[in-house]
Amino acid sequence: MQDIQDYISENKARFLDELIQLLKIPSVSADSAFSQDVLDAADAVKNALQEAGCDTVEICQTDGYPIVYGEKIIDLDSPTVLVYGHYDVQPPDPMDLWNSSPFKPVIEETERHPDGAIFARGACDDKGQMYMHVKALEFMVKSDRLPCNVKFMIEGEEEVGSSNLGPFVAANRDKLSNDIILISDTGMIANDVPSITTGLRGMSYVEVEVTGPNRDLHSGLYGGAVANPINVLAKMIAAMHDENNHITIPGFYDKVEELSQEERAKMAQAPFDLEEYKKTLDISSVYGEAGYTTNERNSIRPTLDVNGIWGGYTGEGAKTVIPSKAYAKISMRLVPNQDWEEITQLFTSHFENIAPEGVSVKVTPHHGGQGYVTPIDTIAYRAASKAYETTFGKKPVPQRSGGSIPIVSLFEKELGSKTILMGFGLDSDAIHSPNEHFGVWNYLKGIETIPYFYKYFTEMKTSDSDN
Amino acid sequence: MQDIQDYISENKARFLDELIQLLKIPSVSADSAFSQDVLDAADAVKNALQEAGCDTVEICQTDGYPIVYGEKIIDLDSPTVLVYGHYDVQPPDPMDLWNSSPFKPVIEETERHPDGAIFARGACDDKGQMYMHVKALEFMVKSDRLPCNVKFMIEGEEEVGSSNLGPFVAANRDKLSNDIILISDTGMIANDVPSITTGLRGMSYVEVEVTGPNRDLHSGLYGGAVANPINVLAKMIAAMHDENNHITIPGFYDKVEELSQEERAKMAQAPFDLEEYKKTLDISSVYGEAGYTTNERNSIRPTLDVNGIWGGYTGEGAKTVIPSKAYAKISMRLVPNQDWEEITQLFTSHFENIAPEGVSVKVTPHHGGQGYVTPIDTIAYRAASKAYETTFGKKPVPQRSGGSIPIVSLFEKELGSKTILMGFGLDSDAIHSPNEHFGVWNYLKGIETIPYFYKYFTEMKTSDSDN
Repeated sequence: MQDIQDYISENKARFLDELIQLLKIPSVSADSAFSQDVLDAADAVKNALQEAGCDTVEICQTDGYPIVYGEKIIDLDSPTVLVYGHYDVQPPDPMDLWNSSPFKPVIEETERHPDGAIFARGACDDKGQMYMHVKALEFMVKSDRLPCNVKFMIEGEEEVGSSNLGPFVAANRDKLSNDIILISDTGMIANDVPSITTGLRGMSYVEVEVTGPNRDLHSGLYGGAVANPINVLAKMIAAMHDENNHITIPGFYDKVEELSQEERAKMAQAPFDLEEYKKTLDISSVYGEAGYTTNERNSIRPTLDVNGIWGGYTGEGAKTVIPSKAYAKISMRLVPNQDWEEITQLFTSHFENIAPEGVSVKVTPHHGGQGYVTPIDTIAYRAASKAYETTFGKKPVPQRSGGSIPIVSLFEKELGSKTILMGFGLDSDAIHSPNEHFGVWNYLKGIETIPYFYKYFTEMKTSDSDN
Repeated sequence: MQDIQDYISENKARFLDELIQLLKIPSVSADSAFSQDVLDAADAVKNALQEAGCDTVEICQTDGYPIVYGEKIIDLDSPTVLVYGHYDVQPPDPMDLWNSSPFKPVIEETERHPDGAIFARGACDDKGQMYMHVKALEFMVKSDRLPCNVKFMIEGEEEVGSSNLGPFVAANRDKLSNDIILISDTGMIANDVPSITTGLRGMSYVEVEVTGPNRDLHSGLYGGAVANPINVLAKMIAAMHDENNHITIPGFYDKVEELSQEERAKMAQAPFDLEEYKKTLDISSVYGEAGYTTNERNSIRPTLDVNGIWGGYTGEGAKTVIPSKAYAKISMRLVPNQDWEEITQLFTSHFENIAPEGVSVKVTPHHGGQGYVTPIDTIAYRAASKAYETTFGKKPVPQRSGGSIPIVSLFEKELGSKTILMGFGLDSDAIHSPNEHFGVWNYLKGIETIPYFYKYFTEMKTSDSDN
């Protein structure tokens, strides 16, 4: 399949330009001010799938943003790959930390991306990684090298919890039937250390509200005499971890999968440079649960992080107020066997229990999802591994990731399908952060690698069925 | 002086209208977006003083907002009253909790203000209370009843720490020389329980910043492995109080004035209804330092309150981010003998000491001021007491307040003058809160009472000098 490299060389400028056009659409699903842009992004994906060669493409309405579905069926007896991705993006703020405008993509060279990287919100997560699949399809169709059936399901609510995807999948089991689900929404270790994600953490995301007095009060007249919701919220958050940074919610760890010493030793062999890690983040010290390494803390251990907090006066200058309310957004990353709905319930009960007298509290679950671990002895893993080996020149490393793609468990439950996670971004690509970017080399490498997965997966699957 | 009541009746509509015009100017000193409005308010005060009968009025420039100075000198051998007030106001937010626009004053009846109250930012603090003095002067000048010299010093930076007032006072000692400083920037217990504030708390106001990684991070990839500045800030704030709600900063209480059992017993006689207090604030329980009553907690005891906190994603929906930074605004109310600069230093050292590895912290002092206690055996107190008794029909109660007017200590130090605090607002007037208001009855009662203070103070002072 030498011609894939030629095809990419010839079309590189167009591949970049098409992605840049898609990145210009500020499809921020979390903020209703951008709702038309989210819909525009769905249209753009629909058009792109049509042009790439899908026979059927439709915009499927849901109770939220639509799901773009496309397919090219070549032979009902061939295997079917279902590609999942999302066209929505995280909010870009804090805006003042971006070096360029988040929705005016620019290509700049960086130390890790000497061939340049596209800087824009969604460049890596997930428009860039999703679009690799569209362009890989284009190549396979144009060159008559598509070896199997392909379906695309690209949603617009991944960054806000995919709450309408479950009902859609449940209602469309036949349409979505497949032999493997293929997702590029994770990363790899480094450009010279390709890796395949074999584990994801689950998540429970909640918003909490602490209410004290029924109105904002003057801190001179009332200070010291009534519960200040901010002080109380700080105390409650602090109480969520003990001195070893273990989470204190009763029952939180009950179902946590404990890895054997052997498994942990194997994990520890993955290349990792703690000094480099600290240097990149500009921190003097890492911080986390006692008894675990950094790589364990952010992959096989559950966490509780405050993702946002606000209350009282946050403007310029000083205001001596005791606010009526204080708020926080809190997410817990979960590991396999922890059930996100159970954890949400445990959190809620605990938060209510530890609220002191003088305040009332409210916990609103935002969304959640189960953790997931994939075996590495499957046809899909072997096909993916061989595809990376073909294009990167070395075998990829299996890696547990700290991130969450809650829908992976959902797909397994509703469709009975396994998922293979072929990520081409790097952890340093600043997804969810200012200056998100995606290496041009990584983008093109993804487009090059994906057709090999289709080829090897179809070959192995067919020979497996023949036996 | 029966004619004061007639004068007020005849001019009530105009008195209200003039105040309403002043309240329409959004003179928010904390927010530079309103800087022209703050200057406009200074002009309005200047004009009002001229029309009320001051002989000389000037706008005195400072390094910040100007100080409006006015005077009417009738006889160099007569006593001189220096009126202090401020024309700047607190920021109005949170805007969504106002029932009417903060800078479009409306008069509405309330349970406590059956004659109506003016709802607007600054209605009570301090435009309304300051303007009582302007109208009292107008009456005294028009009716030829001004018994002594009067000077006005109305500043525009009280709500942001009065940092330019000290240099101004120090540079203008002769001009500002006086026998008593008269301020209406405090409250009274109730319309049928007049009171005079005899103690004020000091203040230290700081802003803190906790920095973790050098950029916002994805909480899936980094959660659990690096210090999250919000979790850390919450922990540090929580650590500022122990389980008895004592403040844990080493040395914080060293100089705190401890009242005798007798003094505390006397304080406890002030009318106070705990059930009513809780009901008004809609709280199930009060909350504060163990071993002290509610009235003690908010007057004779120092406090530490978070007035604002922010960090991470605070918009609609969910964002799984570990922010680079988290912030809080923290104020400590201080009691007599605590030095605010020393306390600021103790706070800063402690905050730096308790910061865990993996974050850096910064403490920026905003402003501060010393606490103050006035004796009740002075001529000024006796004159004020008699003035209230004349117009309210009952003797006022001396009361320690939890609020701070840092400049009272400054005046004593720079000018050698005592201050008398004649407040006419109520604690329930929601100063610094949404729906701030000032009773029409209270406004007019202030205008009526103030001329009696001038009369009695001059009579007592003169007869005292004669002896």
